[in-house]
Amino acid sequence: MGGDNAPDAIVHGVAIAAERHPAVRFLLVGQEAALLPLLRRYKRAAGHSDIRDAREVVGNDMKAATAVRLRGTSMRVAIDAVADGEAAGVVSAGNTGALLALAKIVLKALPGIDRPALAAIMPSARGDTVMLDVGANATCDARNLVEFAVMGDVFARTVLGLTAPRIGLMNVGAEERKGDDRVRQAADILRGTYIAPCFHGFVEGTDIAQGTTDVIVTDGFTGNVALKSAEGAVKLVLQMLRSIFTASIGARLGYLLARPGLERLREVIDPRRYNGAMMLGLNGVVVKSHGGTDAQGFAYALDLAVDMVMHSFNDRIREGLGRIIEAGALRMPEASKAPRLAAGS
Amino acid sequence: MGGDNAPDAIVHGVAIAAERHPAVRFLLVGQEAALLPLLRRYKRAAGHSDIRDAREVVGNDMKAATAVRLRGTSMRVAIDAVADGEAAGVVSAGNTGALLALAKIVLKALPGIDRPALAAIMPSARGDTVMLDVGANATCDARNLVEFAVMGDVFARTVLGLTAPRIGLMNVGAEERKGDDRVRQAADILRGTYIAPCFHGFVEGTDIAQGTTDVIVTDGFTGNVALKSAEGAVKLVLQMLRSIFTASIGARLGYLLARPGLERLREVIDPRRYNGAMMLGLNGVVVKSHGGTDAQGFAYALDLAVDMVMHSFNDRIREGLGRIIEAGALRMPEASKAPRLAAGS
Repeated sequence: MGGDNAPDAIVHGVAIAAERHPAVRFLLVGQEAALLPLLRRYKRAAGHSDIRDAREVVGNDMKAATAVRLRGTSMRVAIDAVADGEAAGVVSAGNTGALLALAKIVLKALPGIDRPALAAIMPSARGDTVMLDVGANATCDARNLVEFAVMGDVFARTVLGLTAPRIGLMNVGAEERKGDDRVRQAADILRGTYIAPCFHGFVEGTDIAQGTTDVIVTDGFTGNVALKSAEGAVKLVLQMLRSIFTASIGARLGYLLARPGLERLREVIDPRRYNGAMMLGLNGVVVKSHGGTDAQGFAYALDLAVDMVMHSFNDRIREGLGRIIEAGALRMPEASKAPRLAAGS
Repeated sequence: MGGDNAPDAIVHGVAIAAERHPAVRFLLVGQEAALLPLLRRYKRAAGHSDIRDAREVVGNDMKAATAVRLRGTSMRVAIDAVADGEAAGVVSAGNTGALLALAKIVLKALPGIDRPALAAIMPSARGDTVMLDVGANATCDARNLVEFAVMGDVFARTVLGLTAPRIGLMNVGAEERKGDDRVRQAADILRGTYIAPCFHGFVEGTDIAQGTTDVIVTDGFTGNVALKSAEGAVKLVLQMLRSIFTASIGARLGYLLARPGLERLREVIDPRRYNGAMMLGLNGVVVKSHGGTDAQGFAYALDLAVDMVMHSFNDRIREGLGRIIEAGALRMPEASKAPRLAAGS
């Protein structure tokens, strides 16, 4: 029920994803009266879905603290289904803060993970890059950054399909003496773990688009700002291009001549292709779709969740963390603290 | 003597700037034997310049801690000239860390300023935006952010020529409850100062390119990453455009037809136009030019320094800080601490 175009875009997105993943079944959680007519419209979704009626909805402006107290919302019922083992993961286009808070409370962090993180995939000159955290934790310590590196490494190996992903730690310069204590400590720890052969060292903001590394590890404040700064800059250039190509008859003709390439450009940087921020480090797969996405974009978010489940993403994070903890590079964190409110969009 | 194309691009840049600012005199600090032949080549520079011989040079890879111990470098002699009142400001394309460290030690912070900051101008959909800090201080507290807001406000009024600049505080969401304590505290303080009418509240990464505010205040780590992420993303799109327009004869023809607009785009986002990061909050004007810039870009950096001097930039910062401190919103900081090493590029 969440997102600007729900529930139509959601059910339509399920129909698109069902075609790509015929073995997957979808549990549609929401107001049955709204969902039933949509299943009649999107027949392929109907063949692969069950409905779970949930009357309440988490509004977009609802505070996370309020949302976590309501037991009958579609968001809560969907996350409960993951906790109960009825579903392997949850995908939502709803209120980000509420989703992150509820997911942390209900699903809880994986053993060894102190801070679950929000990861996003971004296009680069050398293929896709995954960056984390992009908003779940405004402040992080060195230990958190190391956990993010482990999760990013597993993500790049499973979902991005890389055999030896390169991992970078975001800083304000590539030299070892740059930055703050936190990132220097995290780099020191990583150099003593099984991650070391893949650890590239520090990267800068320009390295995101250059694709210097496949994984970029950073705190949630910096990652969120970096992601949105890059998105905003690209959007500005595209707006300028649009006005250039409609400014004169000559320019319109120019557009037509260059159209095949320009449309490929649009596809490469299509925000729908990069829809879906993954909440990593929980007992269960959690993907947050952009609220404003359409059916095609929501289907991409579903693809991500399916990929993570199929590749036993969480088992591999447990393995990776186990190796680091056994090697003595990190100790097991204290019993999970009270959940923190998320800062994502 | 600093920068990839020095000293040729520097002297050539002075020649360009001298034409725009005929009343300004330039003190060229560096190896006289290298500078004299350049003054014969760039005659306009010769008419407006004096040479101060300095034999040593701060190398690009030299640590700031080493650079601050050398008294005979061109960078040191140039900064000393500002401290002695012989020059109103210094512009350098050399080693950023060394420049910031030397400027802080020799010129010292303005009374009331705890942390001088590095500011950069960025293009947006609604004109130029100034962001600070972009790399001088990896960690900042609420007080530092308030100082940055005062300096950003003065910069927007003087150099950007705005009568009522809007000031935004970088965060991971626009809602008041988002982010960390530091930014929330800074927002609270600002709402109690003379800045309040111009204070827009929180902005996000996307707001930089949208031009939601004229000034964006943030810590040096986040600002540096945001600036470089946006630069990297724009560069990637431009690279893709270049390959699109050379991919076929049709696309080449398309480029020719749309060329006037595309060249305007290139001008608007020309990195040379945005060359020059201003070190604000020191007793003297300090502008850092990009090391890789050409004469045109160096002339833009000189323009910035001239603008700041002409508008009595530092006097106005003193006034603004005085108003805030008198009003009791901030206390005078303790006597200036030991200088911190800079993190800029």
